[in-house]
Amino acid sequence: MNATTVDIEEGLVLRPRFDAAGLVTCVTTDAGTGEVLMVAHMNEEALHKTIASGEAWYFSRSRGRLWRKGESSGHFQRVVEIRMDCDQDAVWIRVDQAGGAACHTGRRSCFYRAVTSADGTAALRFVDSERVFDPAEVYRTPG
Amino acid sequence: MNATTVDIEEGLVLRPRFDAAGLVTCVTTDAGTGEVLMVAHMNEEALHKTIASGEAWYFSRSRGRLWRKGESSGHFQRVVEIRMDCDQDAVWIRVDQAGGAACHTGRRSCFYRAVTSADGTAALRFVDSERVFDPAEVYRTPG
Repeated sequence: MNATTVDIEEGLVLRPRFDAAGLVTCVTTDAGTGEVLMVAHMNEEALHKTIASGEAWYFSRSRGRLWRKGESSGHFQRVVEIRMDCDQDAVWIRVDQAGGAACHTGRRSCFYRAVTSADGTAALRFVDSERVFDPAEVYRTPG
Repeated sequence: MNATTVDIEEGLVLRPRFDAAGLVTCVTTDAGTGEVLMVAHMNEEALHKTIASGEAWYFSRSRGRLWRKGESSGHFQRVVEIRMDCDQDAVWIRVDQAGGAACHTGRRSCFYRAVTSADGTAALRFVDSERVFDPAEVYRTPG
């Protein structure tokens, strides 16, 4: 039985609509500041683990595997709230970010550059781009 | 010449990395409250138009076409800031939302339900789910 649009949009049953690759989009914001920290993806297992554990799990498209945020860096994300969007193909999680930085570049947020536009030409400029940690230290290969 | 990871992550050239379908993910937040209003997609033209016009344009995957936010509802989004993420496959725009509601269901945000979990069973509950407008009125078919 297919869920109707009303079931999906107005129902209280969690019916995530995974795409052809089995993923939903996840937006992660800082529960304290509201800042968008990152955008990533979750497969069914990542979503289930996030709900069950209260820590953020994602599915890495580049590595093709489940990924517990912070497993390499120690910078875990404790989940404060999980929300689903109207058509249940996107998840918003509000988190407390351990270590103060979500981005693998060492910055608080992955969104450390703004788009500028002058004379019809778009470029980027750094905004809130101070590094909280040194990625070379945090992701060093065990010796 | 391929852009290197350093070019993409630390450069000031806008190099959006569109996926196989020609899209990047866009997270849209309310510039005033910081609330996540919606998650959508942009193709190259939508991103270009958003940068050039200062209003949000998206690409609708369901309708397979470019979409000026508010074209049906009148609820346009004025762009306050556009940011790119580290690997340039996601865009964050901060907007002033005309009409006070971004969601086609008439709610301020598309994320009007939170995930609850009890006894290992996940469900949804409504949060901030008051309707700002009546979709039957706003999206009525011209007579």
